[in-house]
Amino acid sequence: MSAIANTPQPPYYAVIFTSERTDGDNQYAEMADQMVKLASLQPGFLGVESAREGVGITVSYWDSLEAIRNWKQHEQHLTAQSKGISDWYLTYKTRICKVERDYGFEKA
Amino acid sequence: MSAIANTPQPPYYAVIFTSERTDGDNQYAEMADQMVKLASLQPGFLGVESAREGVGITVSYWDSLEAIRNWKQHEQHLTAQSKGISDWYLTYKTRICKVERDYGFEKA
Repeated sequence: MSAIANTPQPPYYAVIFTSERTDGDNQYAEMADQMVKLASLQPGFLGVESAREGVGITVSYWDSLEAIRNWKQHEQHLTAQSKGISDWYLTYKTRICKVERDYGFEKA
Repeated sequence: MSAIANTPQPPYYAVIFTSERTDGDNQYAEMADQMVKLASLQPGFLGVESAREGVGITVSYWDSLEAIRNWKQHEQHLTAQSKGISDWYLTYKTRICKVERDYGFEKA
């Protein structure tokens, strides 16, 4: 998977998840990896970008709000969300967005 | 500045800027720092979140599309954008989004 998501022409949707972690791994890395794999199998998934440097930012892209809702309610994802609140995150913010326009650059 | 932007009630706008860098710093860090400071002084600026881990993700938040357009056309920002293409980035993608909904969590 490229580090920059190969998304289609807008409009599509983005979920910006910004977080600060608690100390220690507490099986976070393994679960995070599983969740990216599982998300990428869901209907309507378009791609994901992720980086952590103090703050963590994960942006996932979806073809509809319904796809985002379905993923939020996925059983294994609900388990991960619950562990997120109990063990992994000091704080987070989730923002549901409509991507209206995009453009890019690639070095020749 | 907190690592997670303290944005108002939606709707507002987000610019998701995802990039891969060339090798070496080439005065990037200094300019990136300047651009965050300058952006935060612009009318309509609401906050910024940034992390690099292989890929870099910077999300800036704005109160209107007009504020985003004005910042894109700011003279010093235009100089930085030009250096971005000539020196700093292998590839990037910019996505202009409307934040429709958000929610968060903070450990008690």
